[in-house]
Amino acid sequence: MRNYAKNISLLTDFYELTMTNGYVVAGMDEQIGYFDYYFRTLPDNAGFAISCGLASLIDYIENLQFSDDDINFLRSKEIFSELFLSKLKNFKFRGDIWAMPEGTPVFPNEPVIIVRGTMLEAQLIETVLLLLMNHQSLIATKANRIVTAAEGKAVLEFGARRAQGVDASVLGARAAYVVGCVGTSNTVADKYLGVPSAGTMAHSWVQLFESEYLAFKQYAETYPDNTVLLVDTYDVLDSGIPNAIKVFDEILKPLGKRPTGIRLDSGDIAYLSKKAREMLDDAGYSDCKIMASNSLDEHLIKDLNYQGAKIDLYGVGERLITSKTWPVFGGVYKLVGTEINGEFVPKIKLSENVSKITTPGFKQVWRIFEKESNSPIADVVSLHDEIIDENKPYELFDPLHTWKRKQITDFYARPMLVEIFKDGKKVYQEPSLEDIRKYCRLSIDNLWEEIKRFKNPHLYYVDLSQELWQLKQNLLEEHKVSE
Amino acid sequence: MRNYAKNISLLTDFYELTMTNGYVVAGMDEQIGYFDYYFRTLPDNAGFAISCGLASLIDYIENLQFSDDDINFLRSKEIFSELFLSKLKNFKFRGDIWAMPEGTPVFPNEPVIIVRGTMLEAQLIETVLLLLMNHQSLIATKANRIVTAAEGKAVLEFGARRAQGVDASVLGARAAYVVGCVGTSNTVADKYLGVPSAGTMAHSWVQLFESEYLAFKQYAETYPDNTVLLVDTYDVLDSGIPNAIKVFDEILKPLGKRPTGIRLDSGDIAYLSKKAREMLDDAGYSDCKIMASNSLDEHLIKDLNYQGAKIDLYGVGERLITSKTWPVFGGVYKLVGTEINGEFVPKIKLSENVSKITTPGFKQVWRIFEKESNSPIADVVSLHDEIIDENKPYELFDPLHTWKRKQITDFYARPMLVEIFKDGKKVYQEPSLEDIRKYCRLSIDNLWEEIKRFKNPHLYYVDLSQELWQLKQNLLEEHKVSE
Repeated sequence: MRNYAKNISLLTDFYELTMTNGYVVAGMDEQIGYFDYYFRTLPDNAGFAISCGLASLIDYIENLQFSDDDINFLRSKEIFSELFLSKLKNFKFRGDIWAMPEGTPVFPNEPVIIVRGTMLEAQLIETVLLLLMNHQSLIATKANRIVTAAEGKAVLEFGARRAQGVDASVLGARAAYVVGCVGTSNTVADKYLGVPSAGTMAHSWVQLFESEYLAFKQYAETYPDNTVLLVDTYDVLDSGIPNAIKVFDEILKPLGKRPTGIRLDSGDIAYLSKKAREMLDDAGYSDCKIMASNSLDEHLIKDLNYQGAKIDLYGVGERLITSKTWPVFGGVYKLVGTEINGEFVPKIKLSENVSKITTPGFKQVWRIFEKESNSPIADVVSLHDEIIDENKPYELFDPLHTWKRKQITDFYARPMLVEIFKDGKKVYQEPSLEDIRKYCRLSIDNLWEEIKRFKNPHLYYVDLSQELWQLKQNLLEEHKVSE
Repeated sequence: MRNYAKNISLLTDFYELTMTNGYVVAGMDEQIGYFDYYFRTLPDNAGFAISCGLASLIDYIENLQFSDDDINFLRSKEIFSELFLSKLKNFKFRGDIWAMPEGTPVFPNEPVIIVRGTMLEAQLIETVLLLLMNHQSLIATKANRIVTAAEGKAVLEFGARRAQGVDASVLGARAAYVVGCVGTSNTVADKYLGVPSAGTMAHSWVQLFESEYLAFKQYAETYPDNTVLLVDTYDVLDSGIPNAIKVFDEILKPLGKRPTGIRLDSGDIAYLSKKAREMLDDAGYSDCKIMASNSLDEHLIKDLNYQGAKIDLYGVGERLITSKTWPVFGGVYKLVGTEINGEFVPKIKLSENVSKITTPGFKQVWRIFEKESNSPIADVVSLHDEIIDENKPYELFDPLHTWKRKQITDFYARPMLVEIFKDGKKVYQEPSLEDIRKYCRLSIDNLWEEIKRFKNPHLYYVDLSQELWQLKQNLLEEHKVSE
């Protein structure tokens, strides 16, 4: 039944196939198209999102091919031309892709990925590109909020059992690690993706033994170097902690071992953690960590901190792995240009919803940093071959309220979109997961606090360059006249 | 990078491995355990949920095995005993599983699945069992609400690009089909799982041509038997519909073909659909269907119906495929008993949160139907080998408020948990997807309206039999005394 998971080339909205077949029939499939991947709204009304998913996108593009079985399946629909099917059979992605590296803080209405390719290839990859990027950016963005709320306390991702499927659990664990979680409960994310896994015991362990004490004793004997005891199966303060201390004394102490921790998974975590801390300290185990879980998210963790809860490690499950408060990352993939006789021709999509009007053009995104602090001031979306001269003052202006203008000096500007594929060949040196994680942390650290706060964050500027803005105005005028 | 998806045997929370290794070390891994899979809270405060995921659970159990590579990975952790690793190497699930069939309406606090097996095997399958059942039941439950809101109008699942990963998109499409969606945009769900796929064009098609008219013309020429035109790229009423009608007249009419439909994807759908209907009717195309999409869910669809929108088919994406308003199905898997010398020994988990206290015992669930209407009146959770005698009056009582008692007559009772695996062998004749879909629809149709309504649905009774209730009381008493 899971055969579908082995090769995801055919994982595409059916309309990508009807369209691409239509392009072939019309002789337009070789026409070059430019598509922007971007989003319009930030999850949880946050100040920024974290881009994630590029590694799986690269993997998908490199393995993209259609089997005879796929072709026969499509043929059975009796709507596709044989020319189209033969093109699929010989299909290989030969286009160009630019993307912001994984772990980059990203903002609405700027391209995070640009695809340039034949309409056939650029259209065929739409669904999976969106699926991979939307999902993983969503989880990275959410997990970053949770890590931020923990204020330096460790966060372990725990959500496999409530994830929306296998990929959600594994790639979600990876996304959580990218932004700073210390690890995952997910063994597969460890084996295949290198996310450190951890875990100790569930209630069933405690229940299976004749008594909680015997359960703890057996666990400590089996894992004297990593004894973490779940203390809430019966009664935390009257049974769980006293039994844990007894076992630390009787089993670990004679071995010269220290306990690693206890875990709380229900009840009033703030109160219980403080009482547990006292009891452990009094028994000489002030180095024994207290871990807490139970439907936590950034808000509950902030509240626990505010109450002075004595928690050293948060296990966060369902609310992270599904981004419960905001489970959809609304990234879109829009045609912004084409080529006719080798000349770039911009394309726009109008809409009754103004926010759905696209920005045409082949683009680059510049991040403008304040020299002194290394903090980003604004992003400027420019034409692809524009250069922002760091040696001259630069004028930022709001693309909607164009009278809002600001001259900046003492800045440096970095192009954020990196070339990933050129003529179908990967030209990007993929960083290791650890390097992605470091880059992500540094990038977030450099953001101004005003952008990082949870409530009413400062709106980061994403401006258009004068040239790009003019291009868009021209196209809007043109369509206004023609209708 | 997607190698992890090929065999999900190792997809398990790491603590399942530390625990099972601990059981092996303690010589307890062959001890028989009984686990209940059940949930405590209904998504969206609905009156019922739909069980979904059994087919993928069966597939997982049948393919469950650990490769040398898996074993070596675990060995590298340096905490697992060689005896445990050799048991994993030769692992095969040999236990028993009972489950409610896919598509069954299910209620809080009743076992939807029961697993009986050695502690080794019953514990190892916990994570994936939860992951598969929670995810698919969540989507089936949400999709059913959306199908219900559509009041007989067709609903097409469209969500791949916003799904939380590949599995979420494919198995979500299947779950949506089980409860009555007419199909999906997901080509893979069609090829591998038999969910009918459909799709026509995106805005990029329209944009690529010199004009909307030419785009429509080319589409109609390519697909004269299934011409569905997306009419909102520039202006629905001034451009989209007039161009569509022109193409219907010029291209389809001479071929003797009728248009299939038009699609609206933005703007004021209610208003636009009414205007579009008028324009199409006036042009002689009253058989041309109107399809609508744009972040729809059950509430927006209800509201569109209320406004008299003229929509024949709803395309529903992100809010269905992520169950946006309630993206977590909180099913749990709890040890409820064990065997000592072949005798069943019930197990309970207490908790500071009363709702987290488990019900011990090896169970069956009976659905009690009113004879006259075939509508279910209540579910009774009994001991596994209890029989409810339909020929005698039966007394239902509330397990919390035990004075609330009700005698029923003229009923019939059906055991809902069906044996799926016996000694590791599948003994269940799996129904086809179409049969699951029919069973699901019939089961929902038979529910009383009071349970199906969206706001404040009637609370369906899930009672305990007198015997099971007594067993739970005894264990609660026992633990109260012992602490």
